[in-house]
Amino acid sequence: MRTSIATVSLSGGLTEKLTAAARAGFDGVEIFENDLVAAPQSPEEIRARTADLGLTIDLYQPLRDIEGVPDERRFARNLRRAEHKFRLMRRLGADTVLVCSSVAPDTAVDDALAAAQLHRLAQLAEEHGIRIAYEALAWGRHVDTYDHAWRIVEAAGHPALGVCLDSFHILARGSDPKGIEEIPGEKIFFLQLADAPQLAMDVLQWSRHYRCFPGQGAFDIPGLLGHVLRAGYTGPLSLEVFNDVFRQADAGPTAVDARRSLLALQERTGLASALKPPVRPTGIAFAELVASDPEPATAALRALGFTRTARHRTKPVDLWEQGEARVLVNSGAAAHRTGTHLAAIGLETPDPAAAAERAEALLAPLIPRRRAPEDAPLDAIAAPDGTELFLCAAQGPSWRGDFARDTAPPRDGALRGIDHIALTQPWHQFDEASLFHCTVLGLDPEDSVDVADPYGLLRSRAFGTPDGAVRIAVAVGPAPTDETGRPQHLALATDDLVTAVRHFRSAGGRTLPVPENYYDDLAARFPLGEAELATYKELDILYDEDPGGAFRHCYTETSGRVFFELVQRDPGYRGYGAANAPVRLAAQRRA
Amino acid sequence: MRTSIATVSLSGGLTEKLTAAARAGFDGVEIFENDLVAAPQSPEEIRARTADLGLTIDLYQPLRDIEGVPDERRFARNLRRAEHKFRLMRRLGADTVLVCSSVAPDTAVDDALAAAQLHRLAQLAEEHGIRIAYEALAWGRHVDTYDHAWRIVEAAGHPALGVCLDSFHILARGSDPKGIEEIPGEKIFFLQLADAPQLAMDVLQWSRHYRCFPGQGAFDIPGLLGHVLRAGYTGPLSLEVFNDVFRQADAGPTAVDARRSLLALQERTGLASALKPPVRPTGIAFAELVASDPEPATAALRALGFTRTARHRTKPVDLWEQGEARVLVNSGAAAHRTGTHLAAIGLETPDPAAAAERAEALLAPLIPRRRAPEDAPLDAIAAPDGTELFLCAAQGPSWRGDFARDTAPPRDGALRGIDHIALTQPWHQFDEASLFHCTVLGLDPEDSVDVADPYGLLRSRAFGTPDGAVRIAVAVGPAPTDETGRPQHLALATDDLVTAVRHFRSAGGRTLPVPENYYDDLAARFPLGEAELATYKELDILYDEDPGGAFRHCYTETSGRVFFELVQRDPGYRGYGAANAPVRLAAQRRA
Repeated sequence: MRTSIATVSLSGGLTEKLTAAARAGFDGVEIFENDLVAAPQSPEEIRARTADLGLTIDLYQPLRDIEGVPDERRFARNLRRAEHKFRLMRRLGADTVLVCSSVAPDTAVDDALAAAQLHRLAQLAEEHGIRIAYEALAWGRHVDTYDHAWRIVEAAGHPALGVCLDSFHILARGSDPKGIEEIPGEKIFFLQLADAPQLAMDVLQWSRHYRCFPGQGAFDIPGLLGHVLRAGYTGPLSLEVFNDVFRQADAGPTAVDARRSLLALQERTGLASALKPPVRPTGIAFAELVASDPEPATAALRALGFTRTARHRTKPVDLWEQGEARVLVNSGAAAHRTGTHLAAIGLETPDPAAAAERAEALLAPLIPRRRAPEDAPLDAIAAPDGTELFLCAAQGPSWRGDFARDTAPPRDGALRGIDHIALTQPWHQFDEASLFHCTVLGLDPEDSVDVADPYGLLRSRAFGTPDGAVRIAVAVGPAPTDETGRPQHLALATDDLVTAVRHFRSAGGRTLPVPENYYDDLAARFPLGEAELATYKELDILYDEDPGGAFRHCYTETSGRVFFELVQRDPGYRGYGAANAPVRLAAQRRA
Repeated sequence: MRTSIATVSLSGGLTEKLTAAARAGFDGVEIFENDLVAAPQSPEEIRARTADLGLTIDLYQPLRDIEGVPDERRFARNLRRAEHKFRLMRRLGADTVLVCSSVAPDTAVDDALAAAQLHRLAQLAEEHGIRIAYEALAWGRHVDTYDHAWRIVEAAGHPALGVCLDSFHILARGSDPKGIEEIPGEKIFFLQLADAPQLAMDVLQWSRHYRCFPGQGAFDIPGLLGHVLRAGYTGPLSLEVFNDVFRQADAGPTAVDARRSLLALQERTGLASALKPPVRPTGIAFAELVASDPEPATAALRALGFTRTARHRTKPVDLWEQGEARVLVNSGAAAHRTGTHLAAIGLETPDPAAAAERAEALLAPLIPRRRAPEDAPLDAIAAPDGTELFLCAAQGPSWRGDFARDTAPPRDGALRGIDHIALTQPWHQFDEASLFHCTVLGLDPEDSVDVADPYGLLRSRAFGTPDGAVRIAVAVGPAPTDETGRPQHLALATDDLVTAVRHFRSAGGRTLPVPENYYDDLAARFPLGEAELATYKELDILYDEDPGGAFRHCYTETSGRVFFELVQRDPGYRGYGAANAPVRLAAQRRA
């Protein structure tokens, strides 16, 4: 189906918005009146620009407080105002206008009057070659549900008058969308889609500040779309999203995120889709650390019991291994002097080619790579925070073939693999990261949690496979300036945390100091034995529980942007020790 | 009365919080458990630090999910947990603990059980010399109102058990606080105060993220405090404020803002107060522009019709005048190279000494100044954004005496005074600015409005005197990094905007270009004559209306951080043309 986006969903001036929409592959736009009013280009220039970009103008919006006016003189003024806009739309080349149900306090409680006035409006519109799409705002004064709007449109009975359906207004009020199927498809003039997190708040504020793209919130948008399609709607799928964060973010990535949401929505709704089915990763092949000086990272890995097992044949990249945990240390990729950071993740996938094809179709293009002729082919895509995700074949020719094995075989150690990887998200891309990990990578989202840092609340969300083979957590700081969120970490799994930490310590590794007060509190919260508690205190081990089991973990000191976490997870425990994160964050602030 | 603040209200580590509270003059603190748990100091060290700072620990908080437990074994575990904390409190030197009403899903709907269990808890507490302050959370499972909490405490009938009242929990639920007077004063063990903006949202989210200090929100805190005092409460007034922005702001200014709110609250509640009554300013004596190169500012002033009428006797400061508008241009105050910015405002006040004394008592200390022996005494205080506010005598010896008059008398021009001054607020200090302008300066607040910039929403709020002689608007950008909010402006009043703009243009002044689309929209919205509209379009004049009258205004180009606005305001018009602000912001982004 054709895809469209309202200019209010993107930041910047009108021409920036149009360019971003076109680059992301949208077919059309809704022009938000305020964007046009503030633009220095004439309507004719906007029309030409839009056409040059290959975009249609699918909707002009909105006209407000038009109908249900008890006073004929005022209604005449409304018609005059509307006609002014119809002329403007002709100059713009737009033929459908959104009319929102009136919010004026004195709106008549009189469906017949509303229908009669909308009929007159439609008559006037028709003379200008314009169609009216009437939408019930969730906070409309008299008309606030889609079925009410439809009854009035039906009563008005004018060919130039239809309804506009908006998923937010319908689902935020908890209306049953099934009734949409009773509206003739040709009378649904327009469909606006927006998702939203489930918030118990004033619906107008919710709508103006917290909308998001389909798949980023809690609404059943595929279900609603199904009803609209069964009604026979054939117009564009159009996004109208008011969001305080998107307003500040670059229009380019937001437009890509927006269009990705519609591609995924079409897939979920069972519409003919060009997408390959998701190829879920089956494991983490490696994590790659980059540093101009690799010594701090290799010292930490050595203390953790890793062995350098191989070196890349053509690049200054070493492979360190322990159990199924593989870490690459790259001292050649940093263009500038840089401390250690986590730059890439290798994801094992049963079908790298299909995974890459799906990613490209979902607007996550492959990163162009230079490789030596003898290197194994290895595609990578960029996560929203810039981390490179390599799509590694679970079978067959492997990235390992690019490495020459060292003589030393990996030692047996206490660590057996990567439990999870925690990345830091740019503040403006938190919702984008959600959609990316779910749709491009096929991971399942967990609930987002707030974590108190001494200087603000962090938001964190994890994505993973049901078997826990892949777990990626992303966190975002309290505000764009805040650097708290910057650390990244690699959590390594062990079946014996106490032994692992003792080994680490005796090899010279330093754990993040955990305050004694924490252990005093732990003793109050959990019935742990005294000896157990003493061991945890000695080794800076933290403890958490959920109904599925226990979670014991310990952090190393941070080097560059990276620290390690050692994790002993009962099979049933589902979390990441979020209850302990404030203690960790405060300790890292002190360090 | 004694004043106290919960450590959760301030950012940083525990010792930073304590230091900030002591410096702001608080008498005591509530220690939030999570702050202690994350602190590296032992309870004994915290106790000593607190005492050294002259603070008492008035409350330890909170214990959760203690009472109404249907299962005796679980309740025994709760007692064990509580006893653990009682021992900790003894080490800390705290003798009162907050117990929040249970939120556990299986809390028994059984007041007798809750009372019996609280009695047992109080018994145990008493053995440790501890008192229990039981508080109804607004989202408590069974107990969610203060009167319900009191009925249970009364039924429990233990001397070590009383209630804790929290203004947020009481007022957010719309409970009538009058019933507080029926609680014996000695059974009110603690009073927590928090204000909040009126938001229709889930009460838990509202409480955790949007609380603010008394006087910054919409609650009638003085009314509630009156009831509590009439009940006979003699404990501290303590602030417990969870706020996402305060969490990120520096603890020092937040603590000052917090304590100022309690000083003003005591005044409003009619408690014995050391404060001088407010001295409302009667006019704007001058605005002071600072620039290392004064030429752009003076060129703009000249084009606006100002005359340089005087020079400071000892400093490189010129006075420019037109009607009652006075602008100082200071080319000596900038320590570094800097473009033009608005650094100070002179406020005319009938009693500068009393105004200064009140400001100091409200923790807005006088700025130390160097002045020549012959200069008139002139006190200044700093607004939260750093702007210096001079307290100028409306009668008697004047700041003008420091200036030597030029030969040229001021020309008669089209401008007659300063309509308003618009400042940019640091993102973290918006609420602080509200309280400052209202309490320190005695100005009345207007509603806060959101204004769409191309790259995010700005929040803006104006403060003024009822006669409009002083109007100051403060704006804050969408996020701390955002520089959009940076421009400041000086709005100059005229009775004939068209003439004023023509003069300005013919003198070489440049107005901010307003797009033609704006005028097309204006024609649709207001029945303005064609000639009038053509003139506005020609002169970049914007137009707004409210029920009180019309507002016509025009902006100059920005130089440094400053631009001018020319304003023709009908006497009844109360706003600032906010409807036109998005057009202005978009045009400034393009410039």
